[in-house]
Amino acid sequence: MNPRFQGAVVIGAGPVGLFGVFALGMANIPCQVIDALPAPGGQCAALYPEKPIYDIPAQPFILGAELIERLTEQARPFNPIYHLNQQANLLTRLADGFWRVETKQGLVLEAPVVFIATGAGAFGPKRPPLDGLEGYEGTSVHYFVRRALDFKDRRVAIAGGGDSAVDWAILLSELADKVWLIHRRPQFRAQPGSLEKLMALVQAGKIDLVAPGQLSALKGDGKRLSAVLVDDLAGNLRELDADALLCFFGLLGDQSAMSGFGLDLEGGRLAVDPATMSTKLPGVFAIGDIATYPGKLKLILSGFAEAAQAAHAAFPFVHAGQVLHEVHSTTRGVPGTTSS
Amino acid sequence: MNPRFQGAVVIGAGPVGLFGVFALGMANIPCQVIDALPAPGGQCAALYPEKPIYDIPAQPFILGAELIERLTEQARPFNPIYHLNQQANLLTRLADGFWRVETKQGLVLEAPVVFIATGAGAFGPKRPPLDGLEGYEGTSVHYFVRRALDFKDRRVAIAGGGDSAVDWAILLSELADKVWLIHRRPQFRAQPGSLEKLMALVQAGKIDLVAPGQLSALKGDGKRLSAVLVDDLAGNLRELDADALLCFFGLLGDQSAMSGFGLDLEGGRLAVDPATMSTKLPGVFAIGDIATYPGKLKLILSGFAEAAQAAHAAFPFVHAGQVLHEVHSTTRGVPGTTSS
Repeated sequence: MNPRFQGAVVIGAGPVGLFGVFALGMANIPCQVIDALPAPGGQCAALYPEKPIYDIPAQPFILGAELIERLTEQARPFNPIYHLNQQANLLTRLADGFWRVETKQGLVLEAPVVFIATGAGAFGPKRPPLDGLEGYEGTSVHYFVRRALDFKDRRVAIAGGGDSAVDWAILLSELADKVWLIHRRPQFRAQPGSLEKLMALVQAGKIDLVAPGQLSALKGDGKRLSAVLVDDLAGNLRELDADALLCFFGLLGDQSAMSGFGLDLEGGRLAVDPATMSTKLPGVFAIGDIATYPGKLKLILSGFAEAAQAAHAAFPFVHAGQVLHEVHSTTRGVPGTTSS
Repeated sequence: MNPRFQGAVVIGAGPVGLFGVFALGMANIPCQVIDALPAPGGQCAALYPEKPIYDIPAQPFILGAELIERLTEQARPFNPIYHLNQQANLLTRLADGFWRVETKQGLVLEAPVVFIATGAGAFGPKRPPLDGLEGYEGTSVHYFVRRALDFKDRRVAIAGGGDSAVDWAILLSELADKVWLIHRRPQFRAQPGSLEKLMALVQAGKIDLVAPGQLSALKGDGKRLSAVLVDDLAGNLRELDADALLCFFGLLGDQSAMSGFGLDLEGGRLAVDPATMSTKLPGVFAIGDIATYPGKLKLILSGFAEAAQAAHAAFPFVHAGQVLHEVHSTTRGVPGTTSS
């Protein structure tokens, strides 16, 4: 594929990045979008898909997942190309002024405009601070379940106190040889219905509840786990002879990739000119939670306005010599609709 | 009524003013809202209620009237008090730092915070440039029809080329003694269905079409009309013996009231600090199309972000000494909802 196109690379497909695609589209700038997660939506979709949001203008009540659905739909007429499961980590300027964006996974895109809409960063799982953890990842230690059947007849320790931990404990108790559920507190933050099921399975001896309990160490050959040591927070260690460990501690934003962008972070954020949302690199804009300027509020609705601002300022980088009239959507419409 | 309250006076109930009510509510600041029109909604409701808008984030397609409905609903939990048919035209600072807002109609409100969200101004009808017009207004010359029956058995000249002119010509042709429809061009900008009806009534002699035609002069005693002179744009005058004239030339923004605010307009707009949306008067903020700052885009969605910005900056004027935490709506919810 030719990596080069006359448009914008949008890094981050959270709500602000998605609205950026729409705003760029209204300015007649085509987009390709990179995101580290397997689906668009960023935090909204990954962290709180079922949590209501009240402060989206003209949406008295909307769930994170629905917000993302509507933003994706709004961007669709402009035919954005999504590159998912890709973590952008290198930004370099080419001799002709284009920007080259590269991902960890080897994708290369070149365009005159880059929108950085990475929010709190590329999301990855929160990892427990255990010696030798990395060696076990992917074989014995997991942060997501891809196929439940992978754990059939195994001895599985599950750590965490939220819905994921509780739901997988319930589900795997039918398949696995043994299931432990480890949590620092006896209380879980999960759906009441799930908690009832959990308690019934604990009573029936199908799930071994280890709470309070905190992961203390891993035992094994460095790749394959033979046991997990758990601290009961009273100074006693218990050894669970598990051959798999599932950790559900949530996701964590990771800004480390930004170091390859050649931009200085100020307290984890990029300083921009609020009139244009431009970083110090010409053609590179930052919008949403990653951007900062005097008075900046970390609100989704502020990110939306920043996206419009940046798209307006990006116009001459793609359409040199042309004039972008402040056209209202009511006058022009969007592709695929009948303008009135 | 005690004019004084510990909150904000929002001048202008267009989309941005309405979202300002919500944003102020989230900052625990109660509002009273003044608008010159008889209903909230500003331009959206008065000028294009049935026109689709495409660039409201997460609303791929919404009509002006629906947008206003949803914004009003979103503001409702904060119990704003609306003062409609009121045109704010005086702003004065009191000794204790409060602002007194007065309207043409005699309403007085006093509060520490004022949000100016007047957009293109208080809307009024576009008036034809005719000598002595004012003397006839309200008796013989009208810009709105309050009761169709007021025109029963009268001789009515209707001027304009849009839906209002066409629809009232059709309706009054059943009631009035005589109806003329005057328009500069033979073409009308009206619903096809209405045009068909119009043409049928013209054929039947129920409506006298005067097109091309332009209002040229009024005849009468200075208060009661006896005739309207119409120019056929070829230099010929025709006298219509009308005793009523209805003009439907649309609405026009009127910023004249702003002269009583003690603020300088820059090209018809108020300069603000984009970090806070504050005007040069402490506690007085401007948001939406009336506000200007470097890079300002006249978009509804930009006005929404400005409202949030201004509400944040207004907080210390109402809640001195307290700290407004950047609380997300997902964490706290709004009144009348269950926060999760």
